[in-house]
Amino acid sequence: MDTQATGHDEEDQVRWTPDYPEAVRWAPDGSAVDLLDQTQLPELSTWRRCRCADDVADAIRRLQVRGAPAIGVAAAYGLALELAQATSLPPDPFATKLRAAAELLRHARPTAVNLAWAVDRVAAAAQAALASGPEAAAERAWDEADRIHEEDRAMCRRIGEHALALFPQPEDRPLRVMTICNAGALATGGMGTALAAVYLAHFEGRPLRVWALETRPLLQGSRITAWELSRAGIPVTTIVDSVAADVMARGEVDLVITGADRIAANGDAANKVGTYALAVLARHHGVPFYVAAPSSTIDPATPDGASIPIEEREADEVRRGFGKLTAPQDVDVWAPAFDVAPAALITGIVTDQGVFRAPYRFS
Amino acid sequence: MDTQATGHDEEDQVRWTPDYPEAVRWAPDGSAVDLLDQTQLPELSTWRRCRCADDVADAIRRLQVRGAPAIGVAAAYGLALELAQATSLPPDPFATKLRAAAELLRHARPTAVNLAWAVDRVAAAAQAALASGPEAAAERAWDEADRIHEEDRAMCRRIGEHALALFPQPEDRPLRVMTICNAGALATGGMGTALAAVYLAHFEGRPLRVWALETRPLLQGSRITAWELSRAGIPVTTIVDSVAADVMARGEVDLVITGADRIAANGDAANKVGTYALAVLARHHGVPFYVAAPSSTIDPATPDGASIPIEEREADEVRRGFGKLTAPQDVDVWAPAFDVAPAALITGIVTDQGVFRAPYRFS
Repeated sequence: MDTQATGHDEEDQVRWTPDYPEAVRWAPDGSAVDLLDQTQLPELSTWRRCRCADDVADAIRRLQVRGAPAIGVAAAYGLALELAQATSLPPDPFATKLRAAAELLRHARPTAVNLAWAVDRVAAAAQAALASGPEAAAERAWDEADRIHEEDRAMCRRIGEHALALFPQPEDRPLRVMTICNAGALATGGMGTALAAVYLAHFEGRPLRVWALETRPLLQGSRITAWELSRAGIPVTTIVDSVAADVMARGEVDLVITGADRIAANGDAANKVGTYALAVLARHHGVPFYVAAPSSTIDPATPDGASIPIEEREADEVRRGFGKLTAPQDVDVWAPAFDVAPAALITGIVTDQGVFRAPYRFS
Repeated sequence: MDTQATGHDEEDQVRWTPDYPEAVRWAPDGSAVDLLDQTQLPELSTWRRCRCADDVADAIRRLQVRGAPAIGVAAAYGLALELAQATSLPPDPFATKLRAAAELLRHARPTAVNLAWAVDRVAAAAQAALASGPEAAAERAWDEADRIHEEDRAMCRRIGEHALALFPQPEDRPLRVMTICNAGALATGGMGTALAAVYLAHFEGRPLRVWALETRPLLQGSRITAWELSRAGIPVTTIVDSVAADVMARGEVDLVITGADRIAANGDAANKVGTYALAVLARHHGVPFYVAAPSSTIDPATPDGASIPIEEREADEVRRGFGKLTAPQDVDVWAPAFDVAPAALITGIVTDQGVFRAPYRFS
């Protein structure tokens, strides 16, 4: 596994570089896709250089790239990368390679719907162009991956713009935003979902400060959100999850904004466990509580939160998440990965299509 | 440091053994005091055999014994131990040794009021008996240490009895109790404060189940509470702190009971950070929220919670509490050790003197 810094300086002169950290980058000549190895954060910030679809699939499997949108973008480039290096093949072996690489990538994480969707889109584009030969198919694949990336980037920005319109601007002090887990740039192909408005406010020079909840058990808040915001020069304070209530009681939070994994027709929103507690605490302290997510996250077929299946994780993520045993080896653990913020506690749901408010009736 | 199991079997035949884990034990012949090394829990359950005051002071400094009442009991025996081995000295050198050992123990943790109080009590008893010779003084010291231990044990039991009277008993299922941090047997010389009623209910054969919050950053809930309850055969489930809200929403909690570090005159109670969130969440879900503590925890000189100084801990307890770096090394961290549950959210305050209810007016 290549985890060395890959010296993007030359490439950066010819490609656009955003003001926020990126999860996925690519060499403009189609020779490589680089993924920020998020398993090494915050200890090390290293890029994994991927030279073929197998490399990208392996990185997805190892969670080096995570977050449904970011995984989709990475896999799209992974397939395009594989094809860019197969243009000397005759059409039939090229088509075989296309199908094999798509299959490999599609199953790197079987439950990520976004992943299959992105891979299928690139595969279909390449297949359609194959009539004009492998060279054209490879080019078309790369274009389609670029398009998926660009759409994701635009989706994030639209979410950010809609959310930013909701942000108050205190006259005499920074705006204080609280968030949980990581719904930021490193989870997407753009500037994130919940964090998009934070980036936009920062780019506009509006002073703000973020409270990043650590987010046990996997610590995506302290490991990833704190890292990406620091990196972008945005003031961020990390707290253990149970400190959030006290911060609110001290009047130090202007609004809470979180991502969502699934939003039901009635507006109930499933997100990383701890989100429900934040919603209750925000209501108790009179703090607005927003959920930000791509409109594709809304599932009208799910009537309410009670219908959302909640994944339960391995006990050892709690008992020995960091190597050392932190609970008796045989003790019972309940470790749901998500919980549900009920619609009644959500001030607004922000998507790329705009802001929705109660009563939520998605169809 | 001696961390081997010390084979208490013989001694256990001549001394009373409780049904709950103990933090402090002693050899009846006065030759040793054994402290359960709580820094090794839950990985290892080892006893540190202390043969002199210096050993006990070192164990207190290393946090091998923790919890104000348990520290007081350990230090009392530490001084008695030192004197039991100095009976061949003439009275003057004996008195010098007494003063030196008391001084050493008193400063093992300078902020623990209980520690100085217990040491001073044993020292005064020994000093008073020294007129009858070192042998009598040493015996009197041991008796006084025993008395302090016995009083602590009785105090815990009274808290437990008062709290147990508040526990409902569902007919068709176990009672579900939620707690944070460790206010159990291992923090005291007896069966704990918040957990005392849990032990008593269990001894009476009443079915119950405990939800033990992990308690970031130092994990006393998963490391110590889960350990001691499992050890006593009481069903316990460990959860990360942010799961508590979801457990309440599912109707799986009958009551919350926590310890307290200081209770103000108006009933506001400072306790391990996360307690305030639990109090808000309990109110939101209609779950009774009790605080249990020795009556000595009530400080009428402190008018309210806002007057309680809150210790802030080192950022690295959050950033690398598990050894590995879990947040960027230079990221801002806010790490209060305690927060305050306001009186308005406390259903009842249980002490050895009885149960107090709002409006609280301690004087």
